[in-house]
Amino acid sequence: MLDIAIIGSGPAALSAALNCIQRNKTVKVFGRSLDSSLLFTAEKVDNYLGMPDMNGEEMLNQFYQHAVKLGVPFQECRITQILAMGDHYVLNAENEFIETKAIILASGIIKSKAFPGEMEYLGKGVSYCATCDGMLYKNKTVVLVSENSEGEADVNFLSDICKKVIYVPLYHPVYYVKDNVEIKEGKVEEIVGDVRVKGIIINGEKIECDGVFLIKNTVPPESLLFGLETEGNSIKVNRNMETNLKNVYAAGDCTGAPYQIAKAVGEGLVAALSAATALDKEKKNP
Amino acid sequence: MLDIAIIGSGPAALSAALNCIQRNKTVKVFGRSLDSSLLFTAEKVDNYLGMPDMNGEEMLNQFYQHAVKLGVPFQECRITQILAMGDHYVLNAENEFIETKAIILASGIIKSKAFPGEMEYLGKGVSYCATCDGMLYKNKTVVLVSENSEGEADVNFLSDICKKVIYVPLYHPVYYVKDNVEIKEGKVEEIVGDVRVKGIIINGEKIECDGVFLIKNTVPPESLLFGLETEGNSIKVNRNMETNLKNVYAAGDCTGAPYQIAKAVGEGLVAALSAATALDKEKKNP
Repeated sequence: MLDIAIIGSGPAALSAALNCIQRNKTVKVFGRSLDSSLLFTAEKVDNYLGMPDMNGEEMLNQFYQHAVKLGVPFQECRITQILAMGDHYVLNAENEFIETKAIILASGIIKSKAFPGEMEYLGKGVSYCATCDGMLYKNKTVVLVSENSEGEADVNFLSDICKKVIYVPLYHPVYYVKDNVEIKEGKVEEIVGDVRVKGIIINGEKIECDGVFLIKNTVPPESLLFGLETEGNSIKVNRNMETNLKNVYAAGDCTGAPYQIAKAVGEGLVAALSAATALDKEKKNP
Repeated sequence: MLDIAIIGSGPAALSAALNCIQRNKTVKVFGRSLDSSLLFTAEKVDNYLGMPDMNGEEMLNQFYQHAVKLGVPFQECRITQILAMGDHYVLNAENEFIETKAIILASGIIKSKAFPGEMEYLGKGVSYCATCDGMLYKNKTVVLVSENSEGEADVNFLSDICKKVIYVPLYHPVYYVKDNVEIKEGKVEEIVGDVRVKGIIINGEKIECDGVFLIKNTVPPESLLFGLETEGNSIKVNRNMETNLKNVYAAGDCTGAPYQIAKAVGEGLVAALSAATALDKEKKNP
């Protein structure tokens, strides 16, 4: 079992990881590729003390090299769900299940609001992971909505097992989907149903289906981890970066503005030290 | 009048200064020399993301160069008092008086507890600034207690105007004090008096005097700025680095543990952006 799992791969996650290692905790960073960080596209950053006048890509690479040098292990994946098990947590990393004592959420700015119906039907026809839940929809009709091209591999996989697959790309351009996938462009208005999903409304048109897969750039934190307290679009934390859940910490853009590197790096450190201290205390007084 | 005055010259202060400049605010850093920062003596720092494996002096120099490059102005001095003037503040920088709209306190770890009697007699015989208040004790007897060699210049100055000057160095070695200064080594136990200071007790011995000057590495924040709320040994702040006083922010070690560079740099940024935003709002709605 890991001591501390870090969700995200931006500055807050990397700073947290460094400091977990320095506190002699086992740690792993679960994130998407470095270029998924908002920082990657920054043309010029000049307000992170000590590293003047760099572009975002250079800075991220320097951050990443520092973490690698200290032995931080990475796993490139999306975490689609976190389950509380009482005294520990289990992460669903695209159907690999990983146990950890503590979690630091550093998943970046939370841009996506839930679609109407998304939270209501989560687990009742709405899923964030085709690999995990695809087989439940064998010979059925599914709609896959994706904010990025990662959805294409998923929709192609689903097209092999489902009766009918409709793909709603919320990005441009679409690179490759199989011929038996129907593409539907438009705005997602609502996910509808009764006890389970029955359809999805795109541009005023209701498309009947048995399941809706959502591939989002960021999963709303309260759907990632049940009971996590949020405030507006941010995870609620105190000055120790503690959330309302035991041994769950958050750092960086997901805790709210200002969306800045120095804040993320500082919060990553504080979250790591708080988590390490909490685990040390539990060890002493189990 | 300055927009933002920054008290301190460590990582939190420099990060705050950078970000004030980036927000187009007039700013000045009031601090002691760089080697007064705790970081200066660190043998190895490897947990500030992006700058692996440096010693404290190298890191501070790199921080300082970054600030200088962006045009941060510095004034090497001790701030002995801050006065609230209603809509602005006045800093006493060794008897130069500086007006500012907002303040960021980044004065480092608060190690020194007040001596018994210090707060009670502050302004009634206890002073932090010989240059400011020395003339009040012309032809009188004063005791100067100093935590560092900066007290020597002060005590030599006082010896020219006072009847009798006793020097209590709390450091080693003493470099140079004039012959007419009496040196007394020992532990400060209490400052005593009635309505004003009457004496100081060193190692159980009461030394009668009219005034006590205290040269400390850090002045307790609540004596620097009347009414500032503290919590234990730290300045109380919220997640925006606001203190309980209007337009007064704090960042870095003075806000409490963990005493780490990344936390200081992050808090410096947040304090700067909060201060800049507050001033912008006031400008809009005066």
